[in-house]
Amino acid sequence: MMNTICTCKKLKNWPVVILCLVFILFADMAKAQKATWIWYPGDYEVWLSNKMQNRRTERGAFFPPFWKLDSHYALIDFHKDFVLANPEKVDLTVEGQYNVKLDGKALSGYPKAINIPAGKHRLSLKVYNQGSVPAIYVKGAHLASDTSWLVTYEDKEWIDASGKTSDVSATQYVPAGAWNFDSADKTPSTFRLPTEEHRPEKTERKEHSILVDFGKETFGYAKLNGLKGKGNVKLCYGESKEEALATATCELLDSIHIDRPQKADLTMEGSRAFRYINVLFDDNVNADDISMLYEYSPVEQRGSFHCSDQEINKIWDISAYTLHLNTREFFIDGIKRDRWVWSGDAYQSYLMNYYLYFDLPTVTRTLYALRGKDPVTSHINTIMDYTFYWFMGIYDYYQYTGDKSFIKQMYPRMQSLMSYCLSRRDKDGLMEGLPGDWVFIDWADKLSKQGEVSFEQLLLCRSLETMALCANIMQDKPGSARYNQLSTGLRSKIFTYYWNNQKHALVHSRINGKQTNNVTRYANMFSIFFNYFTEAQKQEVKKYVLLNDKVQKITTPYMRFYELEALCAMGEQSYVLKEMKDYWGGMLNLGATTFWEEYDPNKSGAAHYAMYGRQFGKSLCHAWGASPIYLLGKYYLGVKPTAPAYKQYMIEPKLGGLQWMEGSVPTPKGDIKVYCSAKQIKVSGDTGIGTLLFTSSTMPVCKEGAIKTKGKNTYELSITKGTKYTVDYSAL
Amino acid sequence: MMNTICTCKKLKNWPVVILCLVFILFADMAKAQKATWIWYPGDYEVWLSNKMQNRRTERGAFFPPFWKLDSHYALIDFHKDFVLANPEKVDLTVEGQYNVKLDGKALSGYPKAINIPAGKHRLSLKVYNQGSVPAIYVKGAHLASDTSWLVTYEDKEWIDASGKTSDVSATQYVPAGAWNFDSADKTPSTFRLPTEEHRPEKTERKEHSILVDFGKETFGYAKLNGLKGKGNVKLCYGESKEEALATATCELLDSIHIDRPQKADLTMEGSRAFRYINVLFDDNVNADDISMLYEYSPVEQRGSFHCSDQEINKIWDISAYTLHLNTREFFIDGIKRDRWVWSGDAYQSYLMNYYLYFDLPTVTRTLYALRGKDPVTSHINTIMDYTFYWFMGIYDYYQYTGDKSFIKQMYPRMQSLMSYCLSRRDKDGLMEGLPGDWVFIDWADKLSKQGEVSFEQLLLCRSLETMALCANIMQDKPGSARYNQLSTGLRSKIFTYYWNNQKHALVHSRINGKQTNNVTRYANMFSIFFNYFTEAQKQEVKKYVLLNDKVQKITTPYMRFYELEALCAMGEQSYVLKEMKDYWGGMLNLGATTFWEEYDPNKSGAAHYAMYGRQFGKSLCHAWGASPIYLLGKYYLGVKPTAPAYKQYMIEPKLGGLQWMEGSVPTPKGDIKVYCSAKQIKVSGDTGIGTLLFTSSTMPVCKEGAIKTKGKNTYELSITKGTKYTVDYSAL
Repeated sequence: MMNTICTCKKLKNWPVVILCLVFILFADMAKAQKATWIWYPGDYEVWLSNKMQNRRTERGAFFPPFWKLDSHYALIDFHKDFVLANPEKVDLTVEGQYNVKLDGKALSGYPKAINIPAGKHRLSLKVYNQGSVPAIYVKGAHLASDTSWLVTYEDKEWIDASGKTSDVSATQYVPAGAWNFDSADKTPSTFRLPTEEHRPEKTERKEHSILVDFGKETFGYAKLNGLKGKGNVKLCYGESKEEALATATCELLDSIHIDRPQKADLTMEGSRAFRYINVLFDDNVNADDISMLYEYSPVEQRGSFHCSDQEINKIWDISAYTLHLNTREFFIDGIKRDRWVWSGDAYQSYLMNYYLYFDLPTVTRTLYALRGKDPVTSHINTIMDYTFYWFMGIYDYYQYTGDKSFIKQMYPRMQSLMSYCLSRRDKDGLMEGLPGDWVFIDWADKLSKQGEVSFEQLLLCRSLETMALCANIMQDKPGSARYNQLSTGLRSKIFTYYWNNQKHALVHSRINGKQTNNVTRYANMFSIFFNYFTEAQKQEVKKYVLLNDKVQKITTPYMRFYELEALCAMGEQSYVLKEMKDYWGGMLNLGATTFWEEYDPNKSGAAHYAMYGRQFGKSLCHAWGASPIYLLGKYYLGVKPTAPAYKQYMIEPKLGGLQWMEGSVPTPKGDIKVYCSAKQIKVSGDTGIGTLLFTSSTMPVCKEGAIKTKGKNTYELSITKGTKYTVDYSAL
Repeated sequence: MMNTICTCKKLKNWPVVILCLVFILFADMAKAQKATWIWYPGDYEVWLSNKMQNRRTERGAFFPPFWKLDSHYALIDFHKDFVLANPEKVDLTVEGQYNVKLDGKALSGYPKAINIPAGKHRLSLKVYNQGSVPAIYVKGAHLASDTSWLVTYEDKEWIDASGKTSDVSATQYVPAGAWNFDSADKTPSTFRLPTEEHRPEKTERKEHSILVDFGKETFGYAKLNGLKGKGNVKLCYGESKEEALATATCELLDSIHIDRPQKADLTMEGSRAFRYINVLFDDNVNADDISMLYEYSPVEQRGSFHCSDQEINKIWDISAYTLHLNTREFFIDGIKRDRWVWSGDAYQSYLMNYYLYFDLPTVTRTLYALRGKDPVTSHINTIMDYTFYWFMGIYDYYQYTGDKSFIKQMYPRMQSLMSYCLSRRDKDGLMEGLPGDWVFIDWADKLSKQGEVSFEQLLLCRSLETMALCANIMQDKPGSARYNQLSTGLRSKIFTYYWNNQKHALVHSRINGKQTNNVTRYANMFSIFFNYFTEAQKQEVKKYVLLNDKVQKITTPYMRFYELEALCAMGEQSYVLKEMKDYWGGMLNLGATTFWEEYDPNKSGAAHYAMYGRQFGKSLCHAWGASPIYLLGKYYLGVKPTAPAYKQYMIEPKLGGLQWMEGSVPTPKGDIKVYCSAKQIKVSGDTGIGTLLFTSSTMPVCKEGAIKTKGKNTYELSITKGTKYTVDYSAL
């Protein structure tokens, strides 16, 4: 029973060590035995995102990002201090050229195993790897590589002429990063998403071509089975049949030359998005048939939603499929075209993810990848708003997960990015687009990006609130005070500069220090769910902006996300349900099998497929199309955390015209389940302290808990972990 | 004759284009045809230095640097605007995954050649390469990749929903970097220094070992010829015979296991420094003999020195050999141990190089590699003084070469490094060692690094002068004013804070704002050749410090370099000649075949080989041991530039007790040749306007030029390019 390992910082302090040992014996032993590949935090994410983002092609031409790609640190020092009760043999697997030091003494060569005597030790590995990420996997009976190891890219441990090492160290060690590479042979550099073979639903064969239809939008590697002959094969991919047949304008194509006298299968090297593949053969070439290797992220679908309306159910299912296709190594924008990590798109995926997978590594990977490394030389993705969404993503991440360790790793990178922003404010303390800044907001005709746009200041304000929150977590008091002061000041400025009483709204922008006349939806809808408006302002904005057809309409699911969220936040679930059926249902009526980058009901036929001045430029499977997952989970089932990690949470079901609905919302520890009809609510939660809030025209009844009256027709029930509650009531 | 290419920025301005075309026809045609591999400036240097600096081993263990290693940008956009008189086919060779755009339109796939019609065009290549540096080689009849191409790591060229590209670009393009990879198959990533096979001078064979002696210090790959058997082979390398035989303590060793029934030659993978190799075989293993592949930098030795003193000649030759061995991909410190790029060591190599090779790429490569990338997180090599030597290296580089294009590439990196320094000043505006800063100065016993060390302020002051110089070149007027003000202020502070009238010297440091009593040589000798002292101060310092045996003596050739330079700058060539014979001659008397890292005449036997608490820790071939090259060229032949690039220069020969001397000093355009005896001086120069300055007890005679009297016994002769001057005189 003494055969164990103990980790603690004050190793000179033996009583602590012994206490620690005793503690570990009972609490931490199994944990210490689980080894995983580790690296400098963020480095694998940056490296993997480079790999992923350089997979875009456009009509066969490589199409890389237009922003700076950062790289991992090429040389990393890993170490761990520990105590072994008994000697043990420890296996070492390393990606890179490395050395191994036990208690500061280097071992010769590149040891693959090391025998460590009992007692207090420091094991260090220093790894150089230029092409992929320096990473180690250490496994003994008790000693194992995990995120308790410390790493640095700069150990600054020089020695003087007498051989003495530097005595005043300023080396900054941080906990190692890891994911789920839990065996020695699962090397980070060789990671690939899993695939499975899918057959087409339909195959149309002509003399020199095969056209296959996989029945719905999909993603992976085309496979030419029984390929034979000598000549060229051209594959034209289509999200629509029209695109696959338009060999001169389809967005994705592959051309290969083959020379194989014997039949053999060939899987294409590059992964592509498609529903159809149109394979064109030269005279002397042919194949038996076409299939594909479907590539997917093995995230677990934990959230669910089902209701009395079949169209809404289909919208939810198609949304989930859309998000799944766009959930890959990272949350990407769309599977056909960019396949890049865009912060504004990813921000929505984080939120949807909290109601579908609750897969945190995909969130943190995406946040690491987007942030990259210092120095900051431009906004994230070059887009000002996308920088702010990055901060907001961290705000939400903490609220949903309560994960402080991630905040600690990120805080220095947050500080330098915020410094970049603050250094770009104008004399009035606002941010306007400087040369090189892309002020995006939304794809919309004639949307002005000039001057100081109110929407950008609003997001900056929220970002400053995120900084203040994280400064608190980091116990950085001066930081917290400063960021609080900055956000409070900016919030008040926003109302001074942009609120227009005549227009009952925030105007779109200031130009040369003067309010413009332009009212758009963006700043107004965000101010609702940011809770920046007074109740009166909310009502004004609802009437004069959100429900006012004269204000320019939104045509992207991207901004419809926030528009509908704002309406939901004001209790307009019935209106929003109709909008969902109309807008997302509209795409389904056009045969959509995943949701689109943009949808304008006024267009018809193949005109829907055009964008960016190109016939098939539009992406028919875009992550931001999947927002019903979020809306239905947060505003219909009505589940949201009110303290980090769902330690406290709210369930506020709203049928919005549905006869009944039921579903499940994932949390860090188990799920929250909700069923709701006009007569009965059933809820249960595996985590924290929940509050069910609902309205009823009669006094509700629940035998599992005591219902409190909160106001006229409003009732509250406290939800304890592990209990199932049934409430009989009568919906208002 | 119209078959040509023209490069100019204002392509819309056709008259300019036509003028340019005409100009190009006569001036630039041959030039345009020379293609070379290009990359983002500094990136290849950073990448190559990572490769080089991770070759250090210590008793078979990998021993990487302890500072941050930066990386190249993984994604680079290259482009060139040009006009073709006739269509031409252009070949493209690329290291990395790439696309090709002609006039903004992407070509499909990875074209290896492209046909460009006549007219005005922009050719762009965008290259992704994580493991090595994105690089291109473009060659047509007239269009060719060279440093006139522009590159960026962040093109920020987004498009809007209509397909329009961003209209306000803030993309920063800089001229591409290049070296001498002038053919398509000479790819940068596969670069290796050349090798040639050398045989040992002596071979001692025992039953299970072979000891070979190559006659002098050398560097390369051991080669085991006719190796056969099954078992282990161990190679113990020695700079001394003692080291090679000390199998338990030699610094460098290799262990391999072989299993080869047939005889075959084996070249070791890792390059090593040695004079001796002691090869130990297991029972069943043997080899016919041992040779080596000598690896070297193919720099041309342009400088020369020869004189009446054979010992000095040998010192010069051995210095040249020492520098050559340490001139590799970069200027490194020593070939046995570190093999790292150390700024203080390299600084001396730059200066020696100006009198031996005048190889500028090795200087700029080293400066790029040392600087690395932003953000600055520590001093260069973690050493405060080494940061300053980096600035000083640029100062000298400009003086010797006049190369403004390099200054332009470097200026932003200079600015951010200087910002780092300035942000670390204390309340008195001085820099003292903060945690993580290594204040090195020299290897010397009991040398205080506490408080504000005068030597560091002196180097900071010189660095600020370098910033002011470069700000001027960059036409950065506010920068120039600011840096001038900072350097002037600091220079005056140095005298206020450190000059001590009683001690007739600058004291070593201030601690808690108070002068210490300690006087060391460092700040005092630098102030002489920095010309910071008045003439009176110089004389005081010479007497009370430099020639005062009570002041702690210097035992490294590193600081002897500056000590002797200071004495030479004060006309003490006779004294310095004796010191050289004593100190460097002392090493020769001990059998040195290259000069050492440290030499203490008071030690004896194998004790000379110890350092860092290790029996053979000392490097017996250290670049900083080669300073006689610099001293003899600059202060005996007396040649130095007085305007950038030797546009003006001085020849001030000083025999210092020699009967005669002759030599050659390389310049950007040809050489300056000097012969001097007590009766005759012969000089000629291929460049600029020179001034011969000398003293004579009689009126000198020269038929090729008019001698001017400059003062009592002092004469001057103006040297015109291409003329050989003979002056008959009588040395004082």
